[in-house]
Amino acid sequence: MSAAPVLRAPERLRVRVGFELRYALEYPTPMLFVVEPQDRPFQQVIEARRRVLPEPAPGRMHSYTDLFGNRVWRLLAAPGPLLVSHDAVLDVVPHPDPDVRHLPKHPVEALPDHALHYLLPSRYADSDRLAAEAWDRFGGFSGGEQVQAVCDHLHASLPYRAGSDSGTSATEAYRAGAAVCRDFAHLGVAFCRALNVPARYACGYLGDIDVPPDERPMDFHAWFEAYLGGEWRTFDARHNTPRAGRVLIATGRDAADVAFATTFGDAPLLSMRVWADETGPHAGLPPVAVSPAGMETP
Amino acid sequence: MSAAPVLRAPERLRVRVGFELRYALEYPTPMLFVVEPQDRPFQQVIEARRRVLPEPAPGRMHSYTDLFGNRVWRLLAAPGPLLVSHDAVLDVVPHPDPDVRHLPKHPVEALPDHALHYLLPSRYADSDRLAAEAWDRFGGFSGGEQVQAVCDHLHASLPYRAGSDSGTSATEAYRAGAAVCRDFAHLGVAFCRALNVPARYACGYLGDIDVPPDERPMDFHAWFEAYLGGEWRTFDARHNTPRAGRVLIATGRDAADVAFATTFGDAPLLSMRVWADETGPHAGLPPVAVSPAGMETP
Amino acid sequence: MSAAPVLRAPERLRVRVGFELRYALEYPTPMLFVVEPQDRPFQQVIEARRRVLPEPAPGRMHSYTDLFGNRVWRLLAAPGPLLVSHDAVLDVVPHPDPDVRHLPKHPVEALPDHALHYLLPSRYADSDRLAAEAWDRFGGFSGGEQVQAVCDHLHASLPYRAGSDSGTSATEAYRAGAAVCRDFAHLGVAFCRALNVPARYACGYLGDIDVPPDERPMDFHAWFEAYLGGEWRTFDARHNTPRAGRVLIATGRDAADVAFATTFGDAPLLSMRVWADETGPHAGLPPVAVSPAGMETP
Amino acid sequence: MSAAPVLRAPERLRVRVGFELRYALEYPTPMLFVVEPQDRPFQQVIEARRRVLPEPAPGRMHSYTDLFGNRVWRLLAAPGPLLVSHDAVLDVVPHPDPDVRHLPKHPVEALPDHALHYLLPSRYADSDRLAAEAWDRFGGFSGGEQVQAVCDHLHASLPYRAGSDSGTSATEAYRAGAAVCRDFAHLGVAFCRALNVPARYACGYLGDIDVPPDERPMDFHAWFEAYLGGEWRTFDARHNTPRAGRVLIATGRDAADVAFATTFGDAPLLSMRVWADETGPHAGLPPVAVSPAGMETP
Repeated sequence: MSAAPVLRAPERLRVRVGFELRYALEYPTPMLFVVEPQDRPFQQVIEARRRVLPEPAPGRMHSYTDLFGNRVWRLLAAPGPLLVSHDAVLDVVPHPDPDVRHLPKHPVEALPDHALHYLLPSRYADSDRLAAEAWDRFGGFSGGEQVQAVCDHLHASLPYRAGSDSGTSATEAYRAGAAVCRDFAHLGVAFCRALNVPARYACGYLGDIDVPPDERPMDFHAWFEAYLGGEWRTFDARHNTPRAGRVLIATGRDAADVAFATTFGDAPLLSMRVWADETGPHAGLPPVAVSPAGMETP
Repeated sequence: MSAAPVLRAPERLRVRVGFELRYALEYPTPMLFVVEPQDRPFQQVIEARRRVLPEPAPGRMHSYTDLFGNRVWRLLAAPGPLLVSHDAVLDVVPHPDPDVRHLPKHPVEALPDHALHYLLPSRYADSDRLAAEAWDRFGGFSGGEQVQAVCDHLHASLPYRAGSDSGTSATEAYRAGAAVCRDFAHLGVAFCRALNVPARYACGYLGDIDVPPDERPMDFHAWFEAYLGGEWRTFDARHNTPRAGRVLIATGRDAADVAFATTFGDAPLLSMRVWADETGPHAGLPPVAVSPAGMETP
Repeated sequence: MSAAPVLRAPERLRVRVGFELRYALEYPTPMLFVVEPQDRPFQQVIEARRRVLPEPAPGRMHSYTDLFGNRVWRLLAAPGPLLVSHDAVLDVVPHPDPDVRHLPKHPVEALPDHALHYLLPSRYADSDRLAAEAWDRFGGFSGGEQVQAVCDHLHASLPYRAGSDSGTSATEAYRAGAAVCRDFAHLGVAFCRALNVPARYACGYLGDIDVPPDERPMDFHAWFEAYLGGEWRTFDARHNTPRAGRVLIATGRDAADVAFATTFGDAPLLSMRVWADETGPHAGLPPVAVSPAGMETP
Repeated sequence: MSAAPVLRAPERLRVRVGFELRYALEYPTPMLFVVEPQDRPFQQVIEARRRVLPEPAPGRMHSYTDLFGNRVWRLLAAPGPLLVSHDAVLDVVPHPDPDVRHLPKHPVEALPDHALHYLLPSRYADSDRLAAEAWDRFGGFSGGEQVQAVCDHLHASLPYRAGSDSGTSATEAYRAGAAVCRDFAHLGVAFCRALNVPARYACGYLGDIDVPPDERPMDFHAWFEAYLGGEWRTFDARHNTPRAGRVLIATGRDAADVAFATTFGDAPLLSMRVWADETGPHAGLPPVAVSPAGMETP
């Protein structure tokens, strides 16, 4: 880089994203994790590292692809302490989410077959219960304007308030009058489906770019995608402002399909760290030292 | 059955199943139908006939396969009267649903990857809300005995009462204290999932074999399947007695995935007929005459 | 066409297509059939009837969907005479195959992921062996013009001559200097793939519309599809002239994937009939009578 | 290994596998790579690192899953030098390939639907051309014994000789009387299919465990899998002796489906390194330094 003014946006933004979960398990516990960033044209995985400690014995861990094309880690964890972590460096498109308000709506009969599934109600996006409200409030809009109107309304009328239960459906959050990012996503999805716009739940990381350190996320993020103009488009009713540095992990009908961690039996969580930061343009992952005991030394 | 010596059970049972729906549409209406009996080792399609009248113009109708492997008809119906019908002759295994109470449960870690999806809550099988009740009531059983205990409890405690809304979830039906076949199926599915037994919703026809004419079904039927002993097994909490003559159409997470008819917009239903009868061993479909006007003459 | 004013082309063309195969089997014989016309926007199945006689016992027959989305009948046929038949009435788009010569080629990097598979060589479309010839002969063309140049060349230089072996690859037919429809299709596919145009083998019926009775087909037909302008487009190097009344059954890498009949063990074929005719606009299938002995009376 | 009593086999074997390819490209070149070790119960990915240098701009690289479930990297490489590398540490089952000679053959009618595809001939496994030879030579065996007899015959009769062309089919290698691992695999697959045993091509790394340094592989390895006793079983006609340390990358119909690298256009390969070594039980990947110029310093 020279001292001369750099006039154009960088072609890419390098980010490092990851998490570390620590559990204390009393019993052998089957667990599923949906946590690997996708390797897509708009977000390219440069380097990635998975750590599960103690290292599972053969037969105790593998990956599979679910119905929606997401990668799932499947683990039978032994009793005792458990660390599950992923750390990745990606190059992402540096521009914020594009404005798609001008995009027209597909009439239902013009949607591709594969999108129809995302018009149906699901556990947490109970769109059928919001149909009347959806048409009353947003029936006057169409296409990208309509989806944006949904986001504007949710963003303006629901304060962000932590504490929502993992069992809260879109309708319940709407009635309760407060939401976390998961609820914002479910509500966006549910209203879109009620309006015959295919919509799906999306989860991943949202980088801290342009955000003051004290507002930085301590958790994964959730948003939603609506099918407009022949593609799935990103919407985020929680922030409701274009953001750069989004890293997509998975999409599904709702949070039931793509929970970061699904455990069968009690799995007390001791600690959780999530990171999502801009790094230098050629940065890789730092080395790690693994002690013979199997636990990572920081 | 008479006292005369029955030499052997017939190798197959021939049934004729079908339906006819008549609508009066005011607008062009996109519609989905999941109604074709599967062609499976246990139920073989001998002959089948679809009728959609008026016959849709090219581009207005086709079939596709959904995420769960079910065949879906997709139609853009013109305003005016609409008739949708399917009529099929099948050979089915003549024996009633087998007793699988002795089958052990798969621990979660021994389930195949593809079955895990059916442990998650869904729109109408909101298993997460029934977890405490499930373990209190059925935690003392395991495997086939456990699933049977769920069916026995539902059958004994919930009267069959028509009138349930198409938006009723398992929990809501349970609280309301009454159920139609759809609710019995959702409750069976939800309790199984809460108990870590993969379960899915199944829909189709249930033949009138051994049922007095005045108790014969006027509608499609719904039941559920639980994954036990390496296969999906049939359970029917509504009837809770082994039945012959079941004809499977589709399986999915719940009724949202495999509704017989999904319409986008108002689609007033004028009439509905469903049939499911034993026929002679070599019977085929009767001929139909189609009038130039495009509507079937009986 | 006459000088009289043609008011408008018919919206649809109704055709009846089907086949009847008769075998004499000495042993229990596993068999696969890929013979059902697809139900697509451009060809709508109005009525269809499958006949397998003697009717297979439960467990001896079912259908499944292959890797390419085609429906396959799977049968374990008993020793003795066997009849396998399908008869269907469809409405197809009445216009001949459209001219797509103006369509540009997708550079490889712009192809969708799912099309890449169809750039690879396969058993009978051994494109890698034809690469030099392909670029020499057709390297000066691009897009739709290039695919048409392939068809023109094949049509002009290879006489249609029955007798090709079912094991003949594209290269072998090309060297032999004669071809049946299957070879024309394999050669079209192979040249396209060598030129980095995704191409796949297509099979089905070609109706007798506008063909004198004595030239009417006695067999199924094969052609190919090339991916141009974002869709699979029909090409037929055998006829090399736009035809109406095409009915698609299946697509695959080559004839190995979508053979009409695949038998495991000897299966002497006694007779074969194939039909593909225009019918009246509201015609259905004629009734059939099935004798108690299980064989159809004409 | 010492003379001291070894109390038990280690539960796992840690291996490091990887490759580095260097190209000099004249033009923008679309490329596909199938090179990531699978994350399976028998081989667990501990850590993995992909390097593509220069780092592709957004939109120039992503991954997708092919028809067979394999992960494919898709790249549009810029003109100039190109480095593509993957480096991974895995824990694999420490035992050599198990003996499966006792396993019976599935009659064709008892095979699962998904295995039938692997009975058909493919580009390089031209089983239809080897049918007579297959039955003559191996018709007296069945099941695991039969597949082993195929391997014994190939191993004994074909000298390993480098230099086979990438276009060589099983039949051609058999006639030529010499083979590389790819040909051994194609011949194993082709003979099995001719004998109605589903078989597929497998590729990956074969660790250097117990092999003198000067015989260590400088390349990827290929072997095959046959479907016996309800599972895909490993066979390796090239080595024809049970080996430990196998790392599976992909499976497909033959090498056309799962070539390590597929390039569209000329892509001169400057150098190639492949490694597959046992490491210490807790070893991870070494750190790498990446220079600002984008090329890795050793």
